[in-house]
Amino acid sequence: MPPSATSSPFASLLTRCALEWQVYCQHEFVRALAAGTLPAEAFRHYLRQDYLFLIHFARAWGLAVYKSRSLTELRQGLDSLKAIVDLEMGLHVDYCAQWGIDADELENSPEARETMAYTRYVLDAGHRGDLLDLHVALAPCLIGYADIARWIEAQPFTVRGLANPYEAWIAMYASDEFQVAAQTERDWLNTRLAGQTAERLDGLATTFRDATRLEIDFWQMGLDGA
Amino acid sequence: MPPSATSSPFASLLTRCALEWQVYCQHEFVRALAAGTLPAEAFRHYLRQDYLFLIHFARAWGLAVYKSRSLTELRQGLDSLKAIVDLEMGLHVDYCAQWGIDADELENSPEARETMAYTRYVLDAGHRGDLLDLHVALAPCLIGYADIARWIEAQPFTVRGLANPYEAWIAMYASDEFQVAAQTERDWLNTRLAGQTAERLDGLATTFRDATRLEIDFWQMGLDGA
Amino acid sequence: MPPSATSSPFASLLTRCALEWQVYCQHEFVRALAAGTLPAEAFRHYLRQDYLFLIHFARAWGLAVYKSRSLTELRQGLDSLKAIVDLEMGLHVDYCAQWGIDADELENSPEARETMAYTRYVLDAGHRGDLLDLHVALAPCLIGYADIARWIEAQPFTVRGLANPYEAWIAMYASDEFQVAAQTERDWLNTRLAGQTAERLDGLATTFRDATRLEIDFWQMGLDGA
Amino acid sequence: MPPSATSSPFASLLTRCALEWQVYCQHEFVRALAAGTLPAEAFRHYLRQDYLFLIHFARAWGLAVYKSRSLTELRQGLDSLKAIVDLEMGLHVDYCAQWGIDADELENSPEARETMAYTRYVLDAGHRGDLLDLHVALAPCLIGYADIARWIEAQPFTVRGLANPYEAWIAMYASDEFQVAAQTERDWLNTRLAGQTAERLDGLATTFRDATRLEIDFWQMGLDGA
Repeated sequence: MPPSATSSPFASLLTRCALEWQVYCQHEFVRALAAGTLPAEAFRHYLRQDYLFLIHFARAWGLAVYKSRSLTELRQGLDSLKAIVDLEMGLHVDYCAQWGIDADELENSPEARETMAYTRYVLDAGHRGDLLDLHVALAPCLIGYADIARWIEAQPFTVRGLANPYEAWIAMYASDEFQVAAQTERDWLNTRLAGQTAERLDGLATTFRDATRLEIDFWQMGLDGA
Repeated sequence: MPPSATSSPFASLLTRCALEWQVYCQHEFVRALAAGTLPAEAFRHYLRQDYLFLIHFARAWGLAVYKSRSLTELRQGLDSLKAIVDLEMGLHVDYCAQWGIDADELENSPEARETMAYTRYVLDAGHRGDLLDLHVALAPCLIGYADIARWIEAQPFTVRGLANPYEAWIAMYASDEFQVAAQTERDWLNTRLAGQTAERLDGLATTFRDATRLEIDFWQMGLDGA
Repeated sequence: MPPSATSSPFASLLTRCALEWQVYCQHEFVRALAAGTLPAEAFRHYLRQDYLFLIHFARAWGLAVYKSRSLTELRQGLDSLKAIVDLEMGLHVDYCAQWGIDADELENSPEARETMAYTRYVLDAGHRGDLLDLHVALAPCLIGYADIARWIEAQPFTVRGLANPYEAWIAMYASDEFQVAAQTERDWLNTRLAGQTAERLDGLATTFRDATRLEIDFWQMGLDGA
Repeated sequence: MPPSATSSPFASLLTRCALEWQVYCQHEFVRALAAGTLPAEAFRHYLRQDYLFLIHFARAWGLAVYKSRSLTELRQGLDSLKAIVDLEMGLHVDYCAQWGIDADELENSPEARETMAYTRYVLDAGHRGDLLDLHVALAPCLIGYADIARWIEAQPFTVRGLANPYEAWIAMYASDEFQVAAQTERDWLNTRLAGQTAERLDGLATTFRDATRLEIDFWQMGLDGA
């Protein structure tokens, strides 16, 4: 059971798309990455697209800043934006260089359909609804990656350390820092989801499920790129 | 007591800005219009700005169509859009002609600050929040005008018929058709407001109060234009 | 050569994604439909998704209404919205019934990834840019279907009349009415594209190419649904 | 002549609203501030509203991040966002404390109509159009304040140093740092405005003029608050 699936409003969202969440968290891409058997070209394709993904992810947090109703919400959006643009993007570019992908290649890779699908879905969900809708559409990414890292850590077939070429990726998402960030987001969602009407929760569950389906496609895109 | 202020979720919104609502519904512009003593130039200034207002009001319903989550919501937005663009705008242009304002003058009038303030506030409220936020920001207009017409009808100083140059204006908003449209909107709001969290209702109350304040300014703009 | 590819600013856009446009207009789905050999289940899958597509297409025209800078633009958006919601949706539902898909099935079909990808891409392009960006993102649909119908009409392997179960589909998009609507859109685009800066045209060409790629996926989704 | 009014595409925008720009830059509020004769309560009212303004200004830069088409644009939006939220807001709160306005009072001041009018106008201009429209709507603020500080510095009636209670305000906007930021924005605008169609420039000129008018109202609001 993924760590997020405990009793809480967010856990209820997860329960309503339990099948999709499991397919996402335990996808063949994830399993092969855990075992260190993922073809390097699959990972490279994923890395190139993840760079493009980050740009739209940053745009989504810009939208979150716009949609804020308080200074607290505004600072939360800005913090996420800074984390992506000032930190993660640099780390990503450095990490890609280790995999033989230079900055030029990153910037000039055509955007895959799966990247367009998930990122634009998130942005539309945010525009159509309010800040909560936007966060729910983003949750499969932030919270999903944290769950995935913990799931990987718990599997018998997982290989850690130098024997696994994907060790750095696993370590980053399993790190206390990333896990804490994911927990902060879970807490925020639980606070906001509490007391919402059944109709609202239905709409949010659809958004969460659709976004999870599009994350599954993102893994599959990596595999297909090999 | 305005007709909308009965016991219901929307009535609670009204109660939270009772003072502003009263100032809006019983504004000097409204009183003078009811008594037939409003300076013609004040009314003409109002009419010219109301034309520009209608254009942004139509844009707001376009936004409502975009933000719809179901075909029912989408048709509701479209119906409002058609009512404004295909019907009201034509009536407004004809009515303005009776007051000596031709189409050219309407289209070339500079937009008053009060017009910009209310219309852009509504559009931002709609973008920042979801469809409910947008409707709440629009409510002082649709529901307010219905309440105002009924308030006018109930005042001893009101002059009806040919003796009042503003009879046609009063008759339009007091008409069954307009009153039914306002009631439909009240019903929709009551359905959507039911069961919302206290935090959400606080935000909506702020939006409703601000929009009402900006409607007050719109009346004042008319008076100041004389 | 597709009818749109004549000398004009829009033709330049087409030239810049000539390969994608050809793959789109001459896709295996289109060829099989022209020949009457498309598996019925592929067509049914396409029809179900096209219904969901229409809803988001309507949302896009709602967005166009919002983004309008003049009453002319606003009426143009509203006309498209009415054509979709008041006319096309009804025709589509009736047509689907002929293929054994009732309204319930239409409304409850899960949205395919390819549908999400194209529709959300269009909506984001519209939000990110201005009205011209939105129209360019929509062009592969409106203008593309017109080009496709004319291409079908010109192919030796095309079967028309009762011998082709897809005759009604072909006839609708080949009709004068649809062709005129597409030409009106081409004319509008040519007017707006004229004189744009090279940088702007680069951005629009990217949008047009991406949208065309996502339309290709939409055909492929139909084939894969069989 | 304000420093911005030299020959360039942005200067052409200024020329098209020369009258409004002059009224804005040489407003009685500005003159009294330069002379040190502005009533303290007028300034305090301005300061309280400027705090609320900053929040929506930050939202506008969040929107700019969303609307970015490149990493360069995205970083530019983020830099402005950080400057406002991480720097200016803190300075503003400290400065307000010197004028006897504590943080609680700042956060609980009702938003004035003039604040709503300008901020929501900017946000709608940004949503309706593209990133350039948003920047043009923001320009009267960033570039205007720089022009105003330089105009103040050049007036014979201006009092500088301890003799003027508004010295710190003048010094901040006259500082090299602020002037350089304004020049950077002018340069960006000149690059983007170059080569735009006449129709586009007409629309942008309207936006710039309207935004300037709403800035004039913001000064007047300060005076009226005394």
